[in-house]
Amino acid sequence: MLHQIPFKLFTQGRGTYECTAQVRTAVATSGVETGLCHVFCHHTSASLMLCENADPSVRSDLERFMARLAPDGDPSYEHDQEGADDMPAHIRTVLTQTGLSVPVTDGHLGLGTWQGIYLWEHRTAPHQRCITLTVQGE
Amino acid sequence: MLHQIPFKLFTQGRGTYECTAQVRTAVATSGVETGLCHVFCHHTSASLMLCENADPSVRSDLERFMARLAPDGDPSYEHDQEGADDMPAHIRTVLTQTGLSVPVTDGHLGLGTWQGIYLWEHRTAPHQRCITLTVQGE
Amino acid sequence: MLHQIPFKLFTQGRGTYECTAQVRTAVATSGVETGLCHVFCHHTSASLMLCENADPSVRSDLERFMARLAPDGDPSYEHDQEGADDMPAHIRTVLTQTGLSVPVTDGHLGLGTWQGIYLWEHRTAPHQRCITLTVQGE
Repeated sequence: MLHQIPFKLFTQGRGTYECTAQVRTAVATSGVETGLCHVFCHHTSASLMLCENADPSVRSDLERFMARLAPDGDPSYEHDQEGADDMPAHIRTVLTQTGLSVPVTDGHLGLGTWQGIYLWEHRTAPHQRCITLTVQGE
Repeated sequence: MLHQIPFKLFTQGRGTYECTAQVRTAVATSGVETGLCHVFCHHTSASLMLCENADPSVRSDLERFMARLAPDGDPSYEHDQEGADDMPAHIRTVLTQTGLSVPVTDGHLGLGTWQGIYLWEHRTAPHQRCITLTVQGE
Repeated sequence: MLHQIPFKLFTQGRGTYECTAQVRTAVATSGVETGLCHVFCHHTSASLMLCENADPSVRSDLERFMARLAPDGDPSYEHDQEGADDMPAHIRTVLTQTGLSVPVTDGHLGLGTWQGIYLWEHRTAPHQRCITLTVQGE
């Protein structure tokens, strides 16, 4: 069995946006009992992350970590056509995930207790982001 | 064909634990000749890594690299309920892999000569970690 | 349906080498209309990256970022048998991707407008790199 569905997420700019509920719904709709669910982000300046979903300070700490690792407006960047956050967005994307697969078990998305699926918007301006879910199994 | 099995790894605290043998066994058991084997770690403070499996100093150098990149007890972390290694464990997880897929070819796990699959425990205390293997193919 | 093919890439040393065309061809050959295409790199000192494919300065900035993050010849590395670029190549590989999956939709590789698939050679000397493509779907 194979089930593929696109969906869009509208971001308010840099930050993390949980999409676990959308992925759970797609798995339920697919009818797949055992298999894998793949999530794909069709962009190079936003990415995906499996992250602790209880304390929001984990995600604000991650944001601060990335801001220090790949600072906006670093004069060493040559690529800055779209602004000070342009190249940092590409670096953050390459260091995290563009696609991720999660097991489907007993008809449910098999995340651990503290795992949530997040879209990480790396640009400071709001964007519309395209995601494709592919559920494969039996 | 589809074969999914969970297993547990017991860690002695921070460090790398090879699990290539368990994954090879699951592939052999599955009967899949051609396809993919997916490994998934159900945690946000331990992760997976495909790494050089010959010289242990590669992994101790990686440990040192991460300790410098995301130091334990950094005063900039807000999230520290579980101790100085709490937030660094989440950062290390996000920078590495929670899931990875490896080709299955001729009934065997198709790793390169120097590739091993490791669970990377990022917490300093011992933990029990849950892994799910999903083998899909024909 | 399942289609698996190996191919080789010959690199001129450190840098990025686009292989989107090879992956697109494999998807077309597979006959898969809907599913996933998995790309796997059988090495621990070269990796894969989904990256902006329009402005080459994105990739030269990424190269410079990595050179600063994991400098060649850093005296803190114990593993240096193969030279100053040996351990940095393993670090860069662990921080990026060894395998990646992209949706197949309507018989085509479902990349976003600005996404390209690159092999990232992390060693300074030329190498022959082995890749396996696995296309699964219906």
